[in-house]
Amino acid sequence: MARPRRISDELARQQADQPAGEVARFGVDEPLLLDAGIALAPFQIAYRTYGTLNAARSNAILVCHALTGDQHVASDNPVTGKPGWWEIMIGPGKPIDTDRYFVISSNVLGGCMGTTGPASTDPATGKPYGLSLPLITIPDMVRAQAMLVKRLGIDTLFSVVGGSMGGMQVLQWATQYRDRVFSAMPIATAARHSAQNIAFHEVGRQAIMADPEWRGGRYLAEGARPSAGLAVARMAAHITYLSDAALHRKFGRRFQDRDAPTFSFDADFQVESYLRYQGEAFVERFDANSYLYVTRAMDYFDIAADHGGSLAKAFAGTTTRFCVVSFTSDWLFPTADSRQVVHALNAAGASVSFAEITSDKGHDAFLLDEPELFAITRGFLDSAARARGIA
Amino acid sequence: MARPRRISDELARQQADQPAGEVARFGVDEPLLLDAGIALAPFQIAYRTYGTLNAARSNAILVCHALTGDQHVASDNPVTGKPGWWEIMIGPGKPIDTDRYFVISSNVLGGCMGTTGPASTDPATGKPYGLSLPLITIPDMVRAQAMLVKRLGIDTLFSVVGGSMGGMQVLQWATQYRDRVFSAMPIATAARHSAQNIAFHEVGRQAIMADPEWRGGRYLAEGARPSAGLAVARMAAHITYLSDAALHRKFGRRFQDRDAPTFSFDADFQVESYLRYQGEAFVERFDANSYLYVTRAMDYFDIAADHGGSLAKAFAGTTTRFCVVSFTSDWLFPTADSRQVVHALNAAGASVSFAEITSDKGHDAFLLDEPELFAITRGFLDSAARARGIA
Repeated sequence: MARPRRISDELARQQADQPAGEVARFGVDEPLLLDAGIALAPFQIAYRTYGTLNAARSNAILVCHALTGDQHVASDNPVTGKPGWWEIMIGPGKPIDTDRYFVISSNVLGGCMGTTGPASTDPATGKPYGLSLPLITIPDMVRAQAMLVKRLGIDTLFSVVGGSMGGMQVLQWATQYRDRVFSAMPIATAARHSAQNIAFHEVGRQAIMADPEWRGGRYLAEGARPSAGLAVARMAAHITYLSDAALHRKFGRRFQDRDAPTFSFDADFQVESYLRYQGEAFVERFDANSYLYVTRAMDYFDIAADHGGSLAKAFAGTTTRFCVVSFTSDWLFPTADSRQVVHALNAAGASVSFAEITSDKGHDAFLLDEPELFAITRGFLDSAARARGIA
Repeated sequence: MARPRRISDELARQQADQPAGEVARFGVDEPLLLDAGIALAPFQIAYRTYGTLNAARSNAILVCHALTGDQHVASDNPVTGKPGWWEIMIGPGKPIDTDRYFVISSNVLGGCMGTTGPASTDPATGKPYGLSLPLITIPDMVRAQAMLVKRLGIDTLFSVVGGSMGGMQVLQWATQYRDRVFSAMPIATAARHSAQNIAFHEVGRQAIMADPEWRGGRYLAEGARPSAGLAVARMAAHITYLSDAALHRKFGRRFQDRDAPTFSFDADFQVESYLRYQGEAFVERFDANSYLYVTRAMDYFDIAADHGGSLAKAFAGTTTRFCVVSFTSDWLFPTADSRQVVHALNAAGASVSFAEITSDKGHDAFLLDEPELFAITRGFLDSAARARGIA
């Protein structure tokens, strides 16, 4: 397999502060009050837009990215040189049709693609924040997005769409800013992170923090990189994104390069080689501290806990139209998690449709070629657009 | 939670070469021909026995341990000070009744509790083997056990019983030494390691090898210990031993020590604290290189591949009586893996019973208080004992 492009520390630092694409800057007069109880200011949000905002400003769709995603959702990623992570879904004539809708995608708070995160320069010290950045939550990410959306002159989003951690943001939008969300599509997600998912995240964090090159989080200031730890974290996480069946179909027990075992600790099996590549490629595009922050945000996510333990109460009185989607082979965010959301929406009297899509591709199915997902997305948005009066 | 007892390097080294309990030593005149094509000699097997061998030498049960188990199956473990890992199953009046049967349990080849493994002293150098020990396979482990059983004067085992990697050994015994196995009980296991399981093992190995204290495998000779990497490996593996439901029941999203998040990377959630403890306790009792060797042995395991791709052919003509057991919530060795074995045994015309036990405890269920497992084990052995003429 091709080696990933190696990114210099200098480029990585530039990326954190001055990313490609648009940037919305918020000064000390516009602080963001974080759940941790600290006002963050100044801060910035890196974002991309696709399509044209209509005169009524009624056709904007916010697309929220997953754990290691970014704002480059439907155009080449300038860091990796690869296509946007959801180009299969978003573009002219595609299910999220940029001939029709105005698509906004922003890098999450705590990320490392231009939105303020631990790799960003702390204005107080002139050095990267590292762990001195306060912890970020999903509601914090959404608050920042709401400030961006307002700055773009949009009162009400036609839709908020996202999978996995992106779906958590969708659910958060629908509770925190319910009057500003006409429709919402949470995909392969949950209203709270499960114990098993917290456990997997903790393994990843421990792998990073166990790497001596992490340097107590100060690696950027000290010219180091905890690449080995971050690669292990990614490898562990990557297994959870796929199903047993998908791994069996893709790799089975096939050997790499030869027909027999080498009787060594080399990557004998194709699945080992694949995983190692995933780890190596990841460390070239992602900041280790960002990984800590963003996984932690997911762990803390629990909408019901923020509403007296009742998920139905969180959605009470909503007028947003929902389409909830899960995949049969997703064991990271199994269908039961989506059903819990659907039951709460039903209890709240919301307009909700639910689709469990049969797929053997596991959690990552939402990013892949799943015609049923495309058809459902197109249909749901079509119907919502008619209700919204979008041509 | 109580901290595990810290074991000195000296004690660990002694343990590798001179364990508590019995040791069978095989000299240069009795080499073990490994699948890697190398003759291992001398080598030793650490083992324990419980109960009394009858005059007919017909009541011996070999109990095979899982990945990180050992020979101390039904009596206190001298390293940890804890009860034997299967005392709930084995003892006077228990399902594997030591008033009736003679139980043998040995540490596997490649292990670190007294059987020759990478922490053992290489007689050629006087230093620990480290990675200079040839790779070990499940068939190699079973060959070594067969030499031990022969040395104990036993021609035919009344039964071979084990779960997980222990179950792999059971299946291997039943094909490699079919005439020496009267009955066999493979529990929560498979006839080949799956791609997903290889992937999880590879994550663990990469975590160990990424630790600079691993020193290319020479840490024991250099007075180091890759504890951080080994702890991460254990944490990742431990998640796979439990079910999502079990983690939810045990920990849910409960916080540790307080009611609210700390907004830090401390172990906020009980599940994090639990996992960290699992990692810390493990590094005090297990050798990192052994972890590499034993996981690799499981990865290579594929009985059908050794028989022209046909599992049924592997069992053709067997007269062994089988009882195959799986657990509904075991996603590491799901019921489908056991069914594959059962179908092959059926195709081979074998005597086989199969039980899928309803449990939410995941893979580890076979080690826990599962009354249905106890009843099945007792019943299966009773019936086999009558057929074998054991009083």
